[in-house]
Amino acid sequence: MKLALIGAGRIGKVHAQAIDRHPDVTLAAVADYHREAAEALASTYGCRVLSADAVFETPDIDAVLIASSTPTHADYLERAARAGKAILCEKPIALDLARTREALQVLQAHPVTCALGFNRRHDPQFAALKRAVREGRIGNLETLTITSRDPAPPPAEYIGASGGLFRDMMIHDFDMARWLLDEPIAYVHAEGSCLIDPAIGEAGDIDTAMVTLTTSSGRLCHIVNSRRACYGYDQRIEAFGSAGMLQAQNESETRLRFTGEAGQVEEKPKWFFLERYAEAYRREIDDFVYAWRERRAPLAGARDGLEALRLAEAAERSLREGRRIALDTIR
Amino acid sequence: MKLALIGAGRIGKVHAQAIDRHPDVTLAAVADYHREAAEALASTYGCRVLSADAVFETPDIDAVLIASSTPTHADYLERAARAGKAILCEKPIALDLARTREALQVLQAHPVTCALGFNRRHDPQFAALKRAVREGRIGNLETLTITSRDPAPPPAEYIGASGGLFRDMMIHDFDMARWLLDEPIAYVHAEGSCLIDPAIGEAGDIDTAMVTLTTSSGRLCHIVNSRRACYGYDQRIEAFGSAGMLQAQNESETRLRFTGEAGQVEEKPKWFFLERYAEAYRREIDDFVYAWRERRAPLAGARDGLEALRLAEAAERSLREGRRIALDTIR
Amino acid sequence: MKLALIGAGRIGKVHAQAIDRHPDVTLAAVADYHREAAEALASTYGCRVLSADAVFETPDIDAVLIASSTPTHADYLERAARAGKAILCEKPIALDLARTREALQVLQAHPVTCALGFNRRHDPQFAALKRAVREGRIGNLETLTITSRDPAPPPAEYIGASGGLFRDMMIHDFDMARWLLDEPIAYVHAEGSCLIDPAIGEAGDIDTAMVTLTTSSGRLCHIVNSRRACYGYDQRIEAFGSAGMLQAQNESETRLRFTGEAGQVEEKPKWFFLERYAEAYRREIDDFVYAWRERRAPLAGARDGLEALRLAEAAERSLREGRRIALDTIR
Amino acid sequence: MKLALIGAGRIGKVHAQAIDRHPDVTLAAVADYHREAAEALASTYGCRVLSADAVFETPDIDAVLIASSTPTHADYLERAARAGKAILCEKPIALDLARTREALQVLQAHPVTCALGFNRRHDPQFAALKRAVREGRIGNLETLTITSRDPAPPPAEYIGASGGLFRDMMIHDFDMARWLLDEPIAYVHAEGSCLIDPAIGEAGDIDTAMVTLTTSSGRLCHIVNSRRACYGYDQRIEAFGSAGMLQAQNESETRLRFTGEAGQVEEKPKWFFLERYAEAYRREIDDFVYAWRERRAPLAGARDGLEALRLAEAAERSLREGRRIALDTIR
Repeated sequence: MKLALIGAGRIGKVHAQAIDRHPDVTLAAVADYHREAAEALASTYGCRVLSADAVFETPDIDAVLIASSTPTHADYLERAARAGKAILCEKPIALDLARTREALQVLQAHPVTCALGFNRRHDPQFAALKRAVREGRIGNLETLTITSRDPAPPPAEYIGASGGLFRDMMIHDFDMARWLLDEPIAYVHAEGSCLIDPAIGEAGDIDTAMVTLTTSSGRLCHIVNSRRACYGYDQRIEAFGSAGMLQAQNESETRLRFTGEAGQVEEKPKWFFLERYAEAYRREIDDFVYAWRERRAPLAGARDGLEALRLAEAAERSLREGRRIALDTIR
Repeated sequence: MKLALIGAGRIGKVHAQAIDRHPDVTLAAVADYHREAAEALASTYGCRVLSADAVFETPDIDAVLIASSTPTHADYLERAARAGKAILCEKPIALDLARTREALQVLQAHPVTCALGFNRRHDPQFAALKRAVREGRIGNLETLTITSRDPAPPPAEYIGASGGLFRDMMIHDFDMARWLLDEPIAYVHAEGSCLIDPAIGEAGDIDTAMVTLTTSSGRLCHIVNSRRACYGYDQRIEAFGSAGMLQAQNESETRLRFTGEAGQVEEKPKWFFLERYAEAYRREIDDFVYAWRERRAPLAGARDGLEALRLAEAAERSLREGRRIALDTIR
Repeated sequence: MKLALIGAGRIGKVHAQAIDRHPDVTLAAVADYHREAAEALASTYGCRVLSADAVFETPDIDAVLIASSTPTHADYLERAARAGKAILCEKPIALDLARTREALQVLQAHPVTCALGFNRRHDPQFAALKRAVREGRIGNLETLTITSRDPAPPPAEYIGASGGLFRDMMIHDFDMARWLLDEPIAYVHAEGSCLIDPAIGEAGDIDTAMVTLTTSSGRLCHIVNSRRACYGYDQRIEAFGSAGMLQAQNESETRLRFTGEAGQVEEKPKWFFLERYAEAYRREIDDFVYAWRERRAPLAGARDGLEALRLAEAAERSLREGRRIALDTIR
Repeated sequence: MKLALIGAGRIGKVHAQAIDRHPDVTLAAVADYHREAAEALASTYGCRVLSADAVFETPDIDAVLIASSTPTHADYLERAARAGKAILCEKPIALDLARTREALQVLQAHPVTCALGFNRRHDPQFAALKRAVREGRIGNLETLTITSRDPAPPPAEYIGASGGLFRDMMIHDFDMARWLLDEPIAYVHAEGSCLIDPAIGEAGDIDTAMVTLTTSSGRLCHIVNSRRACYGYDQRIEAFGSAGMLQAQNESETRLRFTGEAGQVEEKPKWFFLERYAEAYRREIDDFVYAWRERRAPLAGARDGLEALRLAEAAERSLREGRRIALDTIR
C-alpha cells in the first residue's frame, strides 16, 4: 500500500513512524498546509512532499491518512472517496451531525475502505478485554465503567474550537462504550462541572463529567472524564457481568517497585496517549492495511464516528436540560 | 457501659461478639421476639434474657443496641430515648421519611447519645481514605466513585419488605458519599435495571443501578450497585482530586499468589459483610462507647439516617421520572 | 482448659490477650520473676498471681504457657511435664542441643501435650501456602525461598545472650523450611556478614545472612535474614514446583492506594510480629487447646525445636568453616 | 554504522530486526555457514550475502555482530579485532577461560569497540533498578536476589555442548550480579540438583541451582535458576539495602485482570526472552552504535564476559567440592 499522509503535526508524526516501520505500507508522500512541516517529515522518511490537491490526483497513491486539522477532515475524506483511495481518517469526521452525515453519503456513493481513528480499539489491553467479553468470560455483561482522564487540560483557546468535552474527549469513551456494550443505547444522562480550570468554564465548557448510558436491554454504562490527572493518563475500563469482572488497568513504563519508609511505590501511569497508545497506533495501521487488502471492514469505520457523535450530542443536551435523553431523538 | 441487645438474629450475633470482647462494655441483657433466640445468645455470653419492655424499664441498663427487624426500629428508638438510654440503632430508622422525622423529633426532645449503624464508616480502609482526603492528600476532591456489590441477591420475598434497592442497599453508599463529599448534595440522577433475577423485577424492584450525585460546588459522585457478584463482596471507593487519587481496594483473606499456566492468581475478595466488616463492627462499638462516655456525637447519627434516606427517595423519583431530581425538593 | 502463664513480658501479654478471648481457655494464673509485672497482667484479666513453683503444684491448672526468659524454658518445661500439665513453650527450649535433648527425654518419660511456639506455622497465609503445596497445587516442590527481615536490630546487649542470628532469628525460618520441604535436609551452607550495626559484629554476631539447604532428594531452599528493614517486617515465602509457584506476600494494615506525582503508593508492610502474627498467635492457642483436648500432636512440638536447632548449629559451623555441612554430623 | 551480521539463526534474526529499525545502523551484509539462512535473511532486509571471510576483508563494513554458534565466537572476534571492526559479540566469547583470555589479549593488541551480548543490562526495568541503586535510593546495598527461570528446558542433546547450567544459563545472572553489586566478589558457593529432566542429569548437568556470592565488603547475593517454569520466563531481581528495597517484577503482555469464582487473575509472565527482552535488544544496538561513535566503552564488554565465566567456573568447582570457593583462586 502506497500511502500519503495529510497533516504533519503531532499525530501525523506518530502515524508516519508507525507506517515507516510497517512492512506492508510505504509512506509515499506527505502534505501539510505548513509546507515546512511537510518537508521536515518527508525528509525524515525519504518521501515526496505533495499538496493535498496533488495527493488525490496521483494515481499510484492507494490510500490517504487524514491527520490534518479537524475542520478539514470531512472535505478531504470526501475527496479521497471520490478519488477511490482508501482512507484512514483521524476522528472526528466533523463536529456536527449534518456535516458528518453528508460525508457518509459520499462514502456510500463511493465505497472505499474507510477507517476512523478510534485508536483505543487497537490497544492490546482493551482488545483483550473485548475478546474476553465476546468469548463469554464474564457471562452476560451488565455494567461497564470507563475512566478516562488526561494528564493536563488543553489551553483555553483550544477549548473554543474543540466542540466541547463530549465531542472532543469523551467521544473516545462513547466509541469504546458502543463497541463493548454491543447493543443499541437507549438513553444518555450527563452531569458536568468546571472544577479544574476556570478558563474552561469561561469558554463555555466543562472539564469534569460523568455520563450514564442505558442500553435497550438495560445494561448500564458509566463514563467519567477529567481534563487533568496529576499522575498522568488515566485509562481504565471495568466490565462486570454474571460470571465475573474484567478490569483493564493503567500501564507504566516499568514494573519496578520500591519499598521504603513511605510505603510500596510503583511508577505512575504512562504520561499521555503517545506513550500509552504507541502499540495501538501500530495496530491501527495493521488493521487498515489488511482491511484494505482483504476488502473487509476495518475495526472502526465512518459510521462509528457518526454514532459516537450522536452520543456526544445527547450528552450535551442532557447536561443542558437536566434530564436523560432518548438517543433516538438525536438525528 | 451496660448494654442490652434487642434482636438476636444474624446482625445481633455479630454485635454480641464485638461487645463481649470489648473491655468497656458489658452485655447485660438480650431481648428478642423469638424468646429461644434470645435465650441461646444470652447463654453463650452469660447474660439475662429480658423482654423489650423490660429493657427500657431496667434502670441499670445504660444503652440499647437495636438490631431487631426494620419495622420495629423507630418505636424502640423512641422508647429508648424517652428512657434516657444511649442508642446504637441498626439502619434504617424507618423506610419512610415521615416516620424517620418523628423519631428525630423524639430524639431532639430527649437528647441521648444516638449512633446509627452505618458500619462502613468504621472500616479501617475507608476511614483511612476519609482521613487522607481530609488531610488534603488529593487536594480538592473532584469526583468520587463508589462500587458496591453483594455476593448474591436476597430471596425475592425479602425484596417486597426491603423498601427497594435504593433504601435497602444503596443507603450505605449514599451515606458514604455524603460523608466523603462533605458538602451539600444538589442533584440526584438514577438509572436502574433488573438484569440478575427476574423475580426481583416481578417484585417491583431493580437489581442493578447507577446513580450520579452532584454537589453544590459541582463535585460529581458515581455509585454502582449490583445485587450479585459471583466473586464475593465488591466494596471499593475511588476519590479523585487535584493532587491525586485514592483507591480503597477489595480485601481478601490472604495475599497468597499462585502463578501457573492459567496466569497469576490471588484470592477473590472476602465473601460478604460479616468477613469484610468484622473489624468495622468492632470499631463501631468503640465509637459508640466513647461517644457516650465523652458526651460527643458518634461518627454516624440519626440525622445521617434521615439524609441518606432523602437521597434514596430522590433516586427512586429520578428513576421513575427519567430526570435528575433537585434534592431540596425531597422533604 | 485452665492455663497458667509464666512470663508477663511482651510476648506473655500477647498470649494473655489471645487466651482471654478464647472461649475454651481460662487464664487461671500469671507468674513472673518480676512480681509487679505479674500483678499488672493478672489484674487486667482478673486472675491470680502465683509463683512459678505454685503453678506446678496447683492441681486444677491444666496447662502452662512458658513465656519467660530463654534460659528458664527447659527447666519449666521439665517441671510442667513432670507435673502432668499440658505445655505451650515459647521457642527455643534451650540454646544448645544437649540441654534440649535432656528436656525431650523428660517429655518422653512424662508424655504430655507439648506445643512449641513456632507461631508462623499458624499464620493464615503461610498455612494456606502449606495446604496448597500439600494438595499438589505446584506439583513437585523444587525450590523454596524464605525472606525474613526484622524492622530493627535488637540492642547489642541482647545479642550476647541471644545465641546468635541463626539460633535467635533464623530458627523460625529453619522451622518453616522443614515444615514446607517435608523431607530430610541433607546439607546446610551459610554465609553471613555484619552490614547493619557494627556493635553486633563486635558482639561476635552477624546481622545479615543467607543459607542454602539441600534436601535428600535435591530440593533447594534459600533463606535470607536481615536484622533491619526500614519498611517494616519482611516476611515472605516463595515455593516453586513443577506445576507453578506460590508466593506468600507481605501484609499491610489496609489496601488503600494513593496515585500521585510520585507514583502509585500502597502502605508499607505491617511493622513487626505483633501486628503481622496477631492472628497466628490466636490460632496457636486454638491448636494447643484442641490438640490437648483431642489428644493429638500439636502443629509444632518439642522435636521440631530440636530439629530447627540442629539446622542453626549446622549453619553456624558452615559459616565458621566455609563449607557445606552434612546435617547428620550435627548431633 | 555499516554492520555485517554473522549468524542468521534465531538470535541473529532478533538482531537483524532491531538493526533494520535503527536510524543510525545499516545492515550491510549477512553471513552464515548455512548459505540459505543468510540468503533468506538478506532478502528480507535487502542486503548482501557475504562469507564470513569476506566480511572481515570488506573495507566499508564498520562493525560485525557475531551471532554464530558458540565455538566460532572467539575466532570471529579476533579476526574482527585484527580487521579493525567494531564488535558486538553474543555471549560467551568461549566456554573456557584460557580461550577467552587469548581473545582478550588480541583485543588489547587491537583495541576496537567491543560489546558483549549481556542483553539484560539493557532491559528498561533492570536498567531503572541499577540507576536507582546507583542514585542511593536504597542506601547501602546489602543483599541481592536474582531469580531466573526458563520456560522449558533445552533438548538434552543441547546440554552436552552448552558448557553446563552455570556457563550457559546462570552466566547472565552472574553478569547481572557483578553489575549490580559493583565491587569485587570474594566467594562463590553453589548447590545444584537435577529435578526437572532426568536426561539432563544423564548428560552430566543440573537443571536447578542456587548460588551464593559474597563480596569483599560482605554483601550477599543469591541466584536461583530453574530450567523450566510452567508459567513462562521468570526474571526478577530484588535489591535490598539500608534505605529500602527495589524489586524488578515479571512483565506480562497486558495488565488485564479477571475476577471470578476462582479468584483474581492476571496474565502470566511473557513467555521467553524474545518477548521479555525485545526492548533490551533494541537498546543494546543503541548502546553499541553510540559507544562506537563516541569512542566510549559499551555497557558490557569482553572483560565482563571473562569475569562472568570465572564465576561460572567457581560455581562448578564449588558444586563439585561441597565448599565455597575463593574467586581469586579461579584464573
